[in-house]
Amino acid sequence: MVAVELEIVVRSTEIDVNGHVNNAKYLEYLEWGREEWYESSGLHYEVLKELGVLTVTANININYRKECVQGERLVVRTSPERIGTKSFVLSQQIMSQSGDVCADALITLVTIDTVTRHSTAVPQRLRAMFEQSEHGQS
Amino acid sequence: MVAVELEIVVRSTEIDVNGHVNNAKYLEYLEWGREEWYESSGLHYEVLKELGVLTVTANININYRKECVQGERLVVRTSPERIGTKSFVLSQQIMSQSGDVCADALITLVTIDTVTRHSTAVPQRLRAMFEQSEHGQS
Amino acid sequence: MVAVELEIVVRSTEIDVNGHVNNAKYLEYLEWGREEWYESSGLHYEVLKELGVLTVTANININYRKECVQGERLVVRTSPERIGTKSFVLSQQIMSQSGDVCADALITLVTIDTVTRHSTAVPQRLRAMFEQSEHGQS
Amino acid sequence: MVAVELEIVVRSTEIDVNGHVNNAKYLEYLEWGREEWYESSGLHYEVLKELGVLTVTANININYRKECVQGERLVVRTSPERIGTKSFVLSQQIMSQSGDVCADALITLVTIDTVTRHSTAVPQRLRAMFEQSEHGQS
Repeated sequence: MVAVELEIVVRSTEIDVNGHVNNAKYLEYLEWGREEWYESSGLHYEVLKELGVLTVTANININYRKECVQGERLVVRTSPERIGTKSFVLSQQIMSQSGDVCADALITLVTIDTVTRHSTAVPQRLRAMFEQSEHGQS
Repeated sequence: MVAVELEIVVRSTEIDVNGHVNNAKYLEYLEWGREEWYESSGLHYEVLKELGVLTVTANININYRKECVQGERLVVRTSPERIGTKSFVLSQQIMSQSGDVCADALITLVTIDTVTRHSTAVPQRLRAMFEQSEHGQS
Repeated sequence: MVAVELEIVVRSTEIDVNGHVNNAKYLEYLEWGREEWYESSGLHYEVLKELGVLTVTANININYRKECVQGERLVVRTSPERIGTKSFVLSQQIMSQSGDVCADALITLVTIDTVTRHSTAVPQRLRAMFEQSEHGQS
Repeated sequence: MVAVELEIVVRSTEIDVNGHVNNAKYLEYLEWGREEWYESSGLHYEVLKELGVLTVTANININYRKECVQGERLVVRTSPERIGTKSFVLSQQIMSQSGDVCADALITLVTIDTVTRHSTAVPQRLRAMFEQSEHGQS
């Protein structure tokens, strides 16, 4: 139960002149998926803020594999990938209803101290999501 | 000198599947134009906040007259239209380089007290922009 | 059964610096609602194209009544309002789960001949949606 | 003279709830920069289409280095990075007026045959942009 899934429907204004979802819009879908992951993990923005940190996107590496069209139902799947001292990596996939991977991405996030604005250690509560994940795989 | 103009260029991601700027995107262009008008009028968000108010959009009435395409240079023109006790109306046009009106709109804004969150009198400094406008036309 | 409803969830990237859904984004929500209405009415883009017409937005008149925030579930309600020879008006509301109206709008659409690109009579099949509506109200 | 620069201004609707440009919006900026590069290189969409190809984004690897705020003037810099048989890589940077790099990215694009829809050799005219680049650096 380490991956969190969000179901979305491709809307008309998300389609570009080529008739498919624009490459930038995929990053919005991924952000919606990460919000779902934080929420499912009990790690809302407000919770992290109380722990004295906020998370900042440092790198996104995304492979575009299949176009998505208007009205299509997609699933955005988010799971913990790996964790360092002051950063962590989430793995995400955007999947079509037929199970095809439309895009997959690795998102590197850094934890920032809300006061000093410098990078700081990932709080234990967030770190636990990754350890849970490793146990789940063993 | 009562109208403020902002020049913009239509970008690829602003074009929808029909090959022209989407109707919702016109409202973003208008908002950019209003930001320019507030700034030119010395009425930035921070200035209004110090005066104890913020402005909230209550109504937009927009006529779509001509499509806009990628790469096109547009001018967003914003001018004071009329003013009431607790609200005011800005007139806006989106114009092509050939001078055609692509869209025209009336935007009704209400001034809200930042503390009580209820509608409140338009501050004199903002009101002056409308009186200046009337003098300019006489 | 003349009104069509679409349920949506407010996503993080739809929130502006003021912490609520931006005024332009409401127009995207309305467009998604109209797509649902066309689809429910069996009047997809392709069907209209076969009938020799496309519909173009001529005017949007929208009242903003209540802010919408991230994660909120909204219903976009679309119903036929009135019809002319070459144009028709749809009535739309964006409603919160508590039943509050966040925005209401009238959308005027013109039917365009796909070949001549001039305005043309509303096809009978689309017109029927409005007559059905009037019967429903009587 | 192998890099192409596009100057843009950060607009109000491009700012998210955190008060800075959202991570997905950076990808729109990069796309605008690539459009400028194609145009400066005489390789518009229509030109490529005549050559029987279209380009499809296969991978984006972007580092987010510095936040961008409303009203900021940015430069999107695009240059050829490397080229393969059926794909090529563009290097892009988003720079602030003070010369700071706000983001840098590598964009991998694949050339697709407009008829067969399969990947195909990069046309000589597009390939020449990369050879010119290598000469420029020697």
